[in-house]
Order: sequence, then structure tokens, then C-alpha cells
Amino acid sequence: MTEAGNTPRMDADAFVARLRVEGEKRYHDRHPFHIAMHAGKLSREQIQAWVRNRFYYQTRIPIKDAVILSKSEDPAFRRLWMHRIVDHDGKVDGEGGLAQWLRLAHGVGLDVDAVKSLREVLPGVRFACDAYVTLVRERPLVEAVASSLTEFFSPDIMARRIVAWETHYPWVEAETLAYFRGRVTRAKEDSREAIDYVLAHATTLESQDRCIDALITKTQILWALLDALTTAHPLG
Amino acid sequence: MTEAGNTPRMDADAFVARLRVEGEKRYHDRHPFHIAMHAGKLSREQIQAWVRNRFYYQTRIPIKDAVILSKSEDPAFRRLWMHRIVDHDGKVDGEGGLAQWLRLAHGVGLDVDAVKSLREVLPGVRFACDAYVTLVRERPLVEAVASSLTEFFSPDIMARRIVAWETHYPWVEAETLAYFRGRVTRAKEDSREAIDYVLAHATTLESQDRCIDALITKTQILWALLDALTTAHPLG
Repeated sequence: MTEAGNTPRMDADAFVARLRVEGEKRYHDRHPFHIAMHAGKLSREQIQAWVRNRFYYQTRIPIKDAVILSKSEDPAFRRLWMHRIVDHDGKVDGEGGLAQWLRLAHGVGLDVDAVKSLREVLPGVRFACDAYVTLVRERPLVEAVASSLTEFFSPDIMARRIVAWETHYPWVEAETLAYFRGRVTRAKEDSREAIDYVLAHATTLESQDRCIDALITKTQILWALLDALTTAHPLG
Repeated sequence: MTEAGNTPRMDADAFVARLRVEGEKRYHDRHPFHIAMHAGKLSREQIQAWVRNRFYYQTRIPIKDAVILSKSEDPAFRRLWMHRIVDHDGKVDGEGGLAQWLRLAHGVGLDVDAVKSLREVLPGVRFACDAYVTLVRERPLVEAVASSLTEFFSPDIMARRIVAWETHYPWVEAETLAYFRGRVTRAKEDSREAIDYVLAHATTLESQDRCIDALITKTQILWALLDALTTAHPLG
């Protein structure tokens, strides 16, 4: 591979460090709504609103992963990436991340059919999540993959979320937190696969910069989702 | 579901019959190049050209199927459709339809790496196959699914092809015909899944007409592939 332009690309360590720094400082665990959630400050209605709206984000994941599949010319990459779709859709009805999320919706007292219908999703949440699918569709494959690297920060947030919810929201049935539990391990493996791909395929400084930009845009999407929730359900 | 317009949609039998008639009369087994292939009239070089160029079509299949996945909002449909990608990519390296096709390429005496690189694919073949991916990307999901219904006619053609090749081209190692063998059963199941979906989701006459049009376009794509081959490798 040759470098485009005169500036050499970052070495792997420097590139990973940049991705981590830029992603971490914008990750949605710093959003006031998220801080309030983990501090036990959300009302039942706010928890319900988060679960209902975040489900729309969850439903976009297998769609954006199928778009990523469709952008690859490599059967080996497609084999690797495909499990993400299976992780969310399940191998049979009732399994997988989407079904687990609907059990969480039930666990927080929501009508599962209403959640599934997506009809009460806030417009701002919809726009933000749709922007994720658009990003993945319109950008080169390596940048689409880089946008998934928020998974770097996800195992930690999931582990903390389980403790926070069990402590502060005891009215939520503990076994309905299965989605969060499953993501602790899965997100670690997913982010390792994704970073390997990005390191191998972002072969110029320009491409590396665009990967960082894709990750930043992804953090903005997750942030905007919480902004929309905060506007509709203001914090006390 | 309500009907759009004043004309009621065709009942299932009439719709399936129309799909079959319109597809069958344009199916590429009527193309002179294909007729010559099954009649044992192709030279070794023409057989090689067909295998090399048709591989480009094969490589577009998992891509267009991933696009179809990405257009569905239904985990159950995605679970159903996903096996098509696995069928071509394999569960592990060396398995699946693409790997089988490369063994066929070896079996007809081609350099496998050259075939895999796609660099000798005829421009007209590339345009036709890319048009398939574009069709699937730009049309509604039900029409994208309908375009796959050339599989109605595929089991029969595959069965005839195996006999024809074993009879007329004994220099091709028989075990490298595995791809054709596998498709006899698989295409039957695939077309049943696809027609079930199309019958359930083409709920207006206009949608039914557009599904028929999508299938016709698909037959034109397969036909154009053989036109490009014929131009480059004229029949005797």
C-alpha cells in the first residue's frame, strides 16, 4: 500500500490512541441524561422513555451491519461481520439482542407491542439513528467499520449499568437486564475485530483521519439521542 | 392491507403464473451462447470465458443479498434470508458457492487467482451484474425479492447442465461441478421462500406489476451477460 499525500500515516499505537481519546471524551456516558440514569436520578417514566427510544437505535444495528456486509468484497470479512446480525436477530424467534431488549421493555413496565411498533419514538431519536445508517451507507467500508468503535467503551459502561440499575431501580426485574450482561463480552470481541480491520485498511493519514471523524460522528449520534430524550423528559 | 387504485390485484395463482410465464420466456437458457453450451458446441476457451465472467455474477450475489437484508425491518425475514449469504461465502474458508465456483475455474483449467482478482471480467458483464445490485438497492424490498425468482427456473437448468457438461466436456473434472449440484436443491427452497414473501407483500396490482418488471429486468441482466460473452467469444 502506498501513502497518499506527503504526511506519513500514524503508527498503529498512535492511531488507536487517537481513536480512544476522541471517542472517549465524547462518549454518551458523559451526557447529563446518562449520568442521571447511572446515579439513580431518573424517574420510572424517564427510564421507560429511554428504553422505548433506545430500542429504535437497537433496531438500526442489524440494518447498518447488513449495509456494512453489502459493502465488502471479501467473503472472510463478511463471515466475520455476519455474527453481529445474528447477535441482534437471534438464530430463532425470541433469541438475540432485539428480543432481549423487548424483554427489558416488559421489565420496565412498557407495552411490548407498542415499543415494537416504534410509533412512540421521538423524531430527534429517529433522525439521529437514521443518520447512523446513512453514515455507514455513504462512507467507505473502513470508515463504516470505524464508526462501530464506540464498542471500545461499551463493555465498561454495560458493567456499570448493571450495578447502577440493580442498585437504583430495584423495580426492574433483574433477569431483564440480560442484554446488558451479554454485551460486556460481546462488545470486547466486536471492537477487537473492528480495530483489526481498521488498522489493516486505513492505510493513509487521510483515511485514518476520516475514521476518527466517523467515530466522532457516531458519538454525536448517541449524544443526540440523549439530547432528544432530555428535551422531551427534562431532568429534575 | 388496502388496494391502491381501482383494479384489484391478481389472485395468488394468476400472479405466480404471470411471474413464471414472463420469467421463463426470457430466461437465459434460451440465449444462443447457453444453447451452444448445453449442446456441447463451446470450445474450451469459451467455457473458460463463461466460468471466468460468470464468477463476477456469483460475487455480486452475497452483496445483493446483504443489500436485501439491510432493507428489511423484520428479524424473522433477515434470519430467513441470511442463509443465502452463508450459502455463497461458506461457514469457513474454502466452503460455500464462491469457493466451489473457484474449484470449477480450476477444473476448466483457469488460473484461480486471476479469476478471483476479477481483472479479466468483460466490461459488459460487469455493467450487467452491477445493474442487479443497483436494482436491489433502489427498488422496494418486495421487488428486490421478486428479482431473485429466476430461481424458479434454475433447478431444471442446473440438472440439465450437469448432464450436458459430463457428456460434452469430459475434460472438466466431474467433482468440480459441485456448485451446480448444490443449486438443484437449494434453488428450489430459495424460490419457495421468495415467492411466499412476494405473495404476502405485493398487495396491490401496481406492486405485482412492478415485481414482474423486476423479474424481467433480472432476466435481461442474465441475458446481457451472455451477449457480452458472445461478442467477445463469437459462436462458430
